Amino acid sequence: MIILSRSEIEALIDLDSAHAAVQAAYIAASAGLATMPPVSYLAFPEKDGDCHIKYGHIAGDPTFVVKIAAGFYGNPSIGLPTSNGVMLAFSAQTGVLEAILLDEGFLTDLRTGLGGAIATRALCRPDARRVAIIGTGIQARWQVRCLRQAMPETRFAFTIWGRSQEKARETANVLNGEGIDASVSSDLERLCRDAEIIITTTPSREPLIRNAWIQPGTHITAIGADAPGKQELDAALVARAGRRICDSLEQSLDHGEFSTAFRAGDISAENCGELGAVVGGKVVGRGHPGDITIADLTGVAVQDIAIATAVLNAYRRSRAD
Amino acid sequence: MIILSRSEIEALIDLDSAHAAVQAAYIAASAGLATMPPVSYLAFPEKDGDCHIKYGHIAGDPTFVVKIAAGFYGNPSIGLPTSNGVMLAFSAQTGVLEAILLDEGFLTDLRTGLGGAIATRALCRPDARRVAIIGTGIQARWQVRCLRQAMPETRFAFTIWGRSQEKARETANVLNGEGIDASVSSDLERLCRDAEIIITTTPSREPLIRNAWIQPGTHITAIGADAPGKQELDAALVARAGRRICDSLEQSLDHGEFSTAFRAGDISAENCGELGAVVGGKVVGRGHPGDITIADLTGVAVQDIAIATAVLNAYRRSRAD
Repeated sequence: MIILSRSEIEALIDLDSAHAAVQAAYIAASAGLATMPPVSYLAFPEKDGDCHIKYGHIAGDPTFVVKIAAGFYGNPSIGLPTSNGVMLAFSAQTGVLEAILLDEGFLTDLRTGLGGAIATRALCRPDARRVAIIGTGIQARWQVRCLRQAMPETRFAFTIWGRSQEKARETANVLNGEGIDASVSSDLERLCRDAEIIITTTPSREPLIRNAWIQPGTHITAIGADAPGKQELDAALVARAGRRICDSLEQSLDHGEFSTAFRAGDISAENCGELGAVVGGKVVGRGHPGDITIADLTGVAVQDIAIATAVLNAYRRSRAD
Repeated sequence: MIILSRSEIEALIDLDSAHAAVQAAYIAASAGLATMPPVSYLAFPEKDGDCHIKYGHIAGDPTFVVKIAAGFYGNPSIGLPTSNGVMLAFSAQTGVLEAILLDEGFLTDLRTGLGGAIATRALCRPDARRVAIIGTGIQARWQVRCLRQAMPETRFAFTIWGRSQEKARETANVLNGEGIDASVSSDLERLCRDAEIIITTTPSREPLIRNAWIQPGTHITAIGADAPGKQELDAALVARAGRRICDSLEQSLDHGEFSTAFRAGDISAENCGELGAVVGGKVVGRGHPGDITIADLTGVAVQDIAIATAVLNAYRRSRAD
């Protein structure tokens, strides 16, 4: 059996292969080839913690994957990271446990970044360059890195906004250190009015991004809202968008960014689409340069399957060399 | 982080401590102190395989446990065991993964044996000695071992029946080799008519044990029926019993041994009870020496929590020595 530590996984992973694997997994999921039971959930209200178990299988894959991810939001106060996690890969032929990926949440961060980049690339205007990054956490960084990697010929200018100017500055500094053009804004409205792409990565429970701020032609990738009560975008903005795409219609309409407008009756399942259908060429992404497009990503088990499989393939190749 | 192999776990486990831990967990569950979401399930129909994820937390415990158990029923034809499994223990304070128990299904077999022994001891007549074991698999052996360990002063005589006389003989030989009084019967009806305790451990999908065969005062522990369609006992026998006890009312009435009689309207939730309430002294077990008592065990996550915690406690003690 294979057991890999976070640092071993970080050394093995190749962003291009991982991007391709995650994109293929979205396509398989939207084509109905994936079995993804509802996410299992355990709450620890006294510790402001929770545990999600995502698991599933893509038809024909030799492996199935179970991911256990814990988030304990008081951890930083005792010097621990909020997120923890482990991915387990089992043979879909025999049920034998084949690999334990002790990624400590790294692979979830990465596959979420890759999902955002896949969505942003599929839906933004080809000439879009000015990217507003809303939020200053680890996911803000991964959205930037993965988008750069996915569209290497575009000279993006990233501008970061956060509730804490200090954290926004720190995030920009880290990205600058990686050779990325990133600056900071303290004016959320002005930033949004000026952006061609907006990527939201906050745990906000009330709309941050107002409808009136958004110019025609803007693309928004919304990452933060992944549980009941979370919301980053004005529901009127969701309703106004010319194109609404999500990773999972079921999840997005239930507890993602589209759920508020859906429950209000302002949008319907019929006028939303899935990312796998867009990148698989079954559904049009951006119809018109002036459309506002929104991608809402709540996270799906096929991303975990894809990223775990990519790590294992890289490991096996490294052993075969 | 702690990673233990099956052989390390086998060397660490102490049956008495494990028995006490599982019994305490049943009591906690029936007192409403355990969070046990519904079992997560993934099917692999082409390979006659499935995967169950059981997970939960007992209020106040420092650890929560996720168990992933796979059963691929064609494995023996390629020389592999049917069952595989792994248990993961996480801190309920921080979500950090603390231990991986690579038990390959051993701990599930053991905690199931312990559950049976706890139920049989709680419900059988104190003078019962003649035990019929129905089935010849690994669980038949564990039921015998755990009952002997739970009631060391009783001189049980075990008689084994299986569809295969050869396998029944093999099971008896293994147990004889452990110093246990075990013989074989080829006559199921006669065995049941003569037994004071009957323990059923088969994957049968039709009733094996007929109502007419069972004498007043007999206790039956039914282990096999743990999924829709499985049934070992005549529904009329379930309805006739003076006392019906199960590990989880919700599971037993839905897909356990009590479900057929329940759906037929012959029994109700009100005239069944939970094992945790019996061993916790909240509910009477056997009311009258002439009662037929039935315990139906479908398996609950608190057993997994208890056994994993017992292993970890033993490991920590061994390191402290």
